[in-house]
Amino acid sequence: AAPGTPQVMPTIYERTTAAAIAHGAINLGQGFPDTEGPDWLLELAARAITEPETGPRNQYAPGMGLMELREAISAAQARRQQVTLDPATQVMVTTGATEGISAAILAFARPGSEVLTFEPHYDSYGACVALAGARLVGVPLRGPEFRPDLDAFEAAITERTSMILLNTPHNPTGTVFSTEELTRIVELARAHDLRIMCDEVYEHLMLSDARLPHRSILSIPGAEEVAVAVGSAGKSFSVTGWKIGWVTGGAELVSQIRGVKQFLSFSSGPAFQWAIAHALEDDRGFFAQNTAELEAGRDLLRDGLQELGLAPNRAEAGYFVLGNVSGITSLSAAEFCRILVEEVGVAAIPVSALTIQHLATPSDELEHLVRFAFCKDHATIREGLRRMREHL
Amino acid sequence: AAPGTPQVMPTIYERTTAAAIAHGAINLGQGFPDTEGPDWLLELAARAITEPETGPRNQYAPGMGLMELREAISAAQARRQQVTLDPATQVMVTTGATEGISAAILAFARPGSEVLTFEPHYDSYGACVALAGARLVGVPLRGPEFRPDLDAFEAAITERTSMILLNTPHNPTGTVFSTEELTRIVELARAHDLRIMCDEVYEHLMLSDARLPHRSILSIPGAEEVAVAVGSAGKSFSVTGWKIGWVTGGAELVSQIRGVKQFLSFSSGPAFQWAIAHALEDDRGFFAQNTAELEAGRDLLRDGLQELGLAPNRAEAGYFVLGNVSGITSLSAAEFCRILVEEVGVAAIPVSALTIQHLATPSDELEHLVRFAFCKDHATIREGLRRMREHL
Ligand SMILES: CSCCC(=O)C(=O)O
Ligand SMILES: CSCCC(=O)C(=O)O
Repeated sequence: AAPGTPQVMPTIYERTTAAAIAHGAINLGQGFPDTEGPDWLLELAARAITEPETGPRNQYAPGMGLMELREAISAAQARRQQVTLDPATQVMVTTGATEGISAAILAFARPGSEVLTFEPHYDSYGACVALAGARLVGVPLRGPEFRPDLDAFEAAITERTSMILLNTPHNPTGTVFSTEELTRIVELARAHDLRIMCDEVYEHLMLSDARLPHRSILSIPGAEEVAVAVGSAGKSFSVTGWKIGWVTGGAELVSQIRGVKQFLSFSSGPAFQWAIAHALEDDRGFFAQNTAELEAGRDLLRDGLQELGLAPNRAEAGYFVLGNVSGITSLSAAEFCRILVEEVGVAAIPVSALTIQHLATPSDELEHLVRFAFCKDHATIREGLRRMREHL
Repeated sequence: AAPGTPQVMPTIYERTTAAAIAHGAINLGQGFPDTEGPDWLLELAARAITEPETGPRNQYAPGMGLMELREAISAAQARRQQVTLDPATQVMVTTGATEGISAAILAFARPGSEVLTFEPHYDSYGACVALAGARLVGVPLRGPEFRPDLDAFEAAITERTSMILLNTPHNPTGTVFSTEELTRIVELARAHDLRIMCDEVYEHLMLSDARLPHRSILSIPGAEEVAVAVGSAGKSFSVTGWKIGWVTGGAELVSQIRGVKQFLSFSSGPAFQWAIAHALEDDRGFFAQNTAELEAGRDLLRDGLQELGLAPNRAEAGYFVLGNVSGITSLSAAEFCRILVEEVGVAAIPVSALTIQHLATPSDELEHLVRFAFCKDHATIREGLRRMREHL
């Protein structure tokens, strides 16, 4: 295998889901809703496949994506973030946010360079950086509030740094980056000629008690020349299998990412693109209903973890809440999760699996954190908590 | 941008389709059917989305693909090629053949190494090899029969060669590689410890007058340890927009490719995977009907090109026929195609766009070849020919 090849093991999400199935465990590991997306959205997709009124929907989509969807993404960003994006050049549809992330990293992380991110981080960042022949450098978000330490972040920039990977709202901490934090990072990127990929897949999953609003990186003055934002229809509309994501930003940056993306999957999902275009124009109340359900699930899970002594974090956005096992056991989170799935019957993910391995030492507080997903049916969450209460 | 970044320009296919639209031209450029796939197949996909009887179809598919589809791919390979593939470890579903190709190249083309292929070649090969930090080396297929010169191919292997990219049936020549040719290439790969990616996306598009049957690389004894084959539901069932492809081969090789693929798109298209699983089990006569229609289109186009003095090739498989413009003009095929789309109103692709640029010199015979797609409605082909007759 090429030296740049990432781990050959299945991803932590897949391994966790496989372990959950093998042990008959409640799956609070992989972050996907265990219900389907809204019926009207599924109907739209089905119609686009079988009754394509406005042109064929079963042959190649245009490489940049259907214009209807690019316009809807642009309009949504204008409404929500007061950002102006030319749908022709500044919006590109990808095969899920995952492809937006991989193509951006392959386009901007120079071989031999360093790529900076906050820890913990979504697992594909490290793998794609390795594939680009670069090295991922992590600066920890520290609990209990998991805010970025921007002095430490600035100090980690070297001559070799080529790129910054951000994620707001953040997986797994739920941290929402502030305007000031984003502004300082954009200034650093401009001063050091770095590119930014900002993963904003949880932008529509802000819970009502979040203390900061979600700000897109592109709403920061001057960001457009150095940054792209990545969005996700799967996360926004609970259809993670549709794999419709997007990259937005300066035309020059988007074009460079297209140069890579067109050779990864070419293009995908024309029928789903058409359905999502309609959904972004009119969500029929889905966003409000979905975040209310997520919030109820979050509350349920957080209260249960509190009762169990796992000192959960606030979890203000996204799909996940973090528990700290150091109050109830001397086991590492990784060992705890192994027992949890095998003996208790609950699958969760140790946060150490979402860090650069060599940075995570047993003394590190991240070593004690466990990620639980609350984007699940409430009966599922209740049963998970019942099993934990019974065994722990 | 990273040194390994491929061209930022849209692909030749996209540029050709865009030019066709801009000039109101008949599009015989990009290889996709201008009709939809069979109704029953579209209905199956729609049902998988709206009535998922056998589990949710709108959330992440398993990383290796739905087991139903992997079993159907394995069964089809057993029937058609007498190849035995374990669906659990030797079959992986990808986001179209394009992702199978990119992930295989990123997994096996070592940075700094050379990758060997026959010219002309599908455009993504060169881009992915560049992305892997390797160099593509081409050995021409020479007309009028476009057979591989295996002595020249063997002579092109060096200490630095890491990988071989094959394509049978071949785009754009329609060449079907013989058992003897494939056997010799597998032997070379084994002797030099090279990996083979064999692109077999046209396996179901063999026309009735083909002089050789399609043989999968995996049907060659000893191939499994060095080779993977890439297949395409889009090409097989005329649903190119569904982006369901697959990689098959030795478990170890498939696992290494999965190591890359899981971070490109993760997984995609669970509803389409389910529909294609059914279609591979029972094609309801589609393959026979589709190849009959393709053959009639091929005959129509070939006869027309013959009449126009473009000396078409036999085109025994796939979507394309080659015309040679040297008998009617001293223009290069690239210049000819520019005039063809702008003034005649027909879009086609110069074969020189499907070669490594520095190898193509004006004296090269490939420089005079134009690729025309016959996977189009017969009325479309007729109108294209009428325009050419009127102007040439
Ligand atoms: C692509 S599978 C991972 C889903 C997810 O976003 C997560 O669990 O963090
Ligand atoms: C992915 S677009 C190209 C389609 C095709 O296979 C071709 O035209 O050769």
